[in-house]
Amino acid sequence: MSTTTVPTPAAGLEGVVAGESEICYIDGYAGILSYRGYNIHILAKNATFEEVIWLLWKGSLPKQDELAGLKADLFAHAAIPAQVEEFLKSNLKAAPMDVLRTAVSMLSLYDPHAKDMTPAANQLKATALMAQTSTIVSSFGRLRTGQPVVAPDPGLSFAGNFLYCLTGKKPDEIMEHTFDVALVLHAEHELNASTFAARVTAATLSDIYSSVTSAIGALKGPLHGGANEDVIKMPGFGHRVYRTEDPRATHLRHMSEALGKSTGHEDLYLMSSKVEETVKGEKKLNPNVDFYSASTYYSLGIPVDLFTPVFAVSRMSGWTAHILEQYHNNRLIRPRAEYKGNPDGMPWVPMAER
Amino acid sequence: MSTTTVPTPAAGLEGVVAGESEICYIDGYAGILSYRGYNIHILAKNATFEEVIWLLWKGSLPKQDELAGLKADLFAHAAIPAQVEEFLKSNLKAAPMDVLRTAVSMLSLYDPHAKDMTPAANQLKATALMAQTSTIVSSFGRLRTGQPVVAPDPGLSFAGNFLYCLTGKKPDEIMEHTFDVALVLHAEHELNASTFAARVTAATLSDIYSSVTSAIGALKGPLHGGANEDVIKMPGFGHRVYRTEDPRATHLRHMSEALGKSTGHEDLYLMSSKVEETVKGEKKLNPNVDFYSASTYYSLGIPVDLFTPVFAVSRMSGWTAHILEQYHNNRLIRPRAEYKGNPDGMPWVPMAER
Repeated sequence: MSTTTVPTPAAGLEGVVAGESEICYIDGYAGILSYRGYNIHILAKNATFEEVIWLLWKGSLPKQDELAGLKADLFAHAAIPAQVEEFLKSNLKAAPMDVLRTAVSMLSLYDPHAKDMTPAANQLKATALMAQTSTIVSSFGRLRTGQPVVAPDPGLSFAGNFLYCLTGKKPDEIMEHTFDVALVLHAEHELNASTFAARVTAATLSDIYSSVTSAIGALKGPLHGGANEDVIKMPGFGHRVYRTEDPRATHLRHMSEALGKSTGHEDLYLMSSKVEETVKGEKKLNPNVDFYSASTYYSLGIPVDLFTPVFAVSRMSGWTAHILEQYHNNRLIRPRAEYKGNPDGMPWVPMAER
Repeated sequence: MSTTTVPTPAAGLEGVVAGESEICYIDGYAGILSYRGYNIHILAKNATFEEVIWLLWKGSLPKQDELAGLKADLFAHAAIPAQVEEFLKSNLKAAPMDVLRTAVSMLSLYDPHAKDMTPAANQLKATALMAQTSTIVSSFGRLRTGQPVVAPDPGLSFAGNFLYCLTGKKPDEIMEHTFDVALVLHAEHELNASTFAARVTAATLSDIYSSVTSAIGALKGPLHGGANEDVIKMPGFGHRVYRTEDPRATHLRHMSEALGKSTGHEDLYLMSSKVEETVKGEKKLNPNVDFYSASTYYSLGIPVDLFTPVFAVSRMSGWTAHILEQYHNNRLIRPRAEYKGNPDGMPWVPMAER
């Protein structure tokens, strides 16, 4: 094997470059995160989630007509096939991430263009996946609490519609804006495990549904997206890449405080702040993106076991951007393993002699 | 970013070691493949697929009672939930790999132990996944041709039962043995793209259903498992790892010839042999595992668009072995990307000025 491989540079591919990308820049030591060159602080202050979706896909900020077109397309594709809604209704007690993974996989069966791998067809599928993932999560949230599905309102933003379709109430400006910023902050993060799973799948030239289904499966794990549901138990601190404060946590801390005050959940923010102080003092660990997401989402009326599905609603933008980039300049992702097992040449042992 | 990453060693992680494993050894230059130290030629000659499943999971050949226990467990878990069978019946025209990916994802919803991450529970899930994947593929093959599902026969091997449940006829000895060897040859191949997708997913500590669903999505791609359906069109030659004849192709060539003669499909073998000669002569490319699988599967009565799902039935053994190994000694798989995009610090441009 020595002729075809190099020794393990680091367990878990830590610090290993797996490919080129123009989508996201992270400097874990300086605490810098940018999408397509736009610093996350600038985006959190100025951009809507719809602008960020366009930016991630196309590489530049949308002009007025492009943004209007994107919004219209998202609204036009928000409906999910009747069979998928039936599936949700038949599994009301199931784990939301299992439901989401299966429902998104199922979408491919009802897409007449599922096999069309042209860039235009894949771009359209990415748009539909953005809208339909939001519908799946909000509809499941309604149905499992015995409430009817809510149709989206064309006058609301993507963020506003998600909250409206989940809670049945039009969100106020602070809630809509807070959730919009939360979606912006969670949209993209380079080759995190779920995005990498999506690219590994896409790199076999498998379809976009297969690729995002892989991503959802990976996001579910408690060492990745699943961590945001476990925040009250213990994670929410430290990150594989950041060695300083996660720049997303800065915004979520402020939003958690402001939203807590306006919704009567300030106790949650204060408790979180106390935990942060203690963990920072004793373990020298910084809060990550999950930590203040928890109190923010809770104050927005999102149930704890939908935190990871909501993460998926946002990250779908980054996943699809990476999948489209992978298709554009593809190479099969196929590493090697360092073999540590029995020496080759084990002799066959007949059953009677085992 | 230079402080946290090293330059891309090779596109697509070619030749890069992504982790340690005791499961599979490949020397692409010498044409050596072994599972747990047992050379593929020894296994093809001596082992049944059930013995190989055990070997991949446990690292040693099963004793008599262990093998009997495994066979009983596989038989006991072959039934699929009624909801999954309903799903198959409702999607008879769908692409088989989309159906398989969704159906396997769906299995998690009806497993009362889905959340149990103990090694014993995961081992049981791996056993059930082996049996249920076979049932999903054979049942779908029956249902979509308007035929009733066939219950497996405890007197038949795993290979024999798959053919029986797919075709409704008990296979003769040559057919059963040929398919058994084909399953052995396709069972495992180190960090191929689907297995790597499974490990990336499992490394977030996501569940085994999520992990194998990622694998199925990756296997679907025409640069990976999907290639075996395209063999008549053009792939079936060359391999990322092998620089000499794929040792699995050697067996499949012989089996294709023998089976062709016994089933009246010798013309297929002769045609394949002619193609091999031409491509080897003109392009200096060796046939890979897919090339003679095609004529072998066809002679066994397997429809062309079930070739990749059949590959999944076999590779489920390798996927689950790798997932269990990943859980046993886990580290999040999270590489970095080499950033090639806009410089960080792009200024915000108001809508009116874009």
